[in-house]
Amino acid sequence: MEWSKREREIARQVFKAAYLRECMAALEVVRNMAAEIDEPTGLWQLSDYLMNKRREIDEKYDYRYSVLPIVFARLIEEGWMEYEDLAGISGEKLEQIRQLAGDKSR
Amino acid sequence: MEWSKREREIARQVFKAAYLRECMAALEVVRNMAAEIDEPTGLWQLSDYLMNKRREIDEKYDYRYSVLPIVFARLIEEGWMEYEDLAGISGEKLEQIRQLAGDKSR
Repeated sequence: MEWSKREREIARQVFKAAYLRECMAALEVVRNMAAEIDEPTGLWQLSDYLMNKRREIDEKYDYRYSVLPIVFARLIEEGWMEYEDLAGISGEKLEQIRQLAGDKSR
Repeated sequence: MEWSKREREIARQVFKAAYLRECMAALEVVRNMAAEIDEPTGLWQLSDYLMNKRREIDEKYDYRYSVLPIVFARLIEEGWMEYEDLAGISGEKLEQIRQLAGDKSR
């Protein structure tokens, strides 16, 4: 499917906002973990958390137009964005994203 | 060099205290970094810091009696322990540690 210039602008913005939202949520977790650490093991658990989160986020935020509907569907499922954020994207693409996101997000 | 039972007890205790001291200092750095993060990049810098610190600490804290004088010398040089912590360790070992730590720690 082709993405128009306007659609690409919207997609880029929505993508970036979801990324920021997820990173800031991870930061909140990191701050809480750091605040509660009282022995060295806690530091290495925090390191593991960050390493895994980084890998997860790197893998998830794949901005290729061929996979973008899958990415958006996942982000909606996970609560990092909403259908409403995609206003301006063609109905055909929205339907595809809706189907990929599955019933549980409707 | 042989380590007597009493020396091993002292060494173990001093080793553990230095480890704790260094980990708690790293925790302080982590908390300060976490407090100042305002964009995703900061999270990944924190992840790198923790990963490197973990590798450094894992490598440094090697409790084999054959290398313990080298380890103690380094910990003294870096300020994680002091000669005084080693009271009860034989003069011969202390001299070795002192030589390994070099002039800058005298």
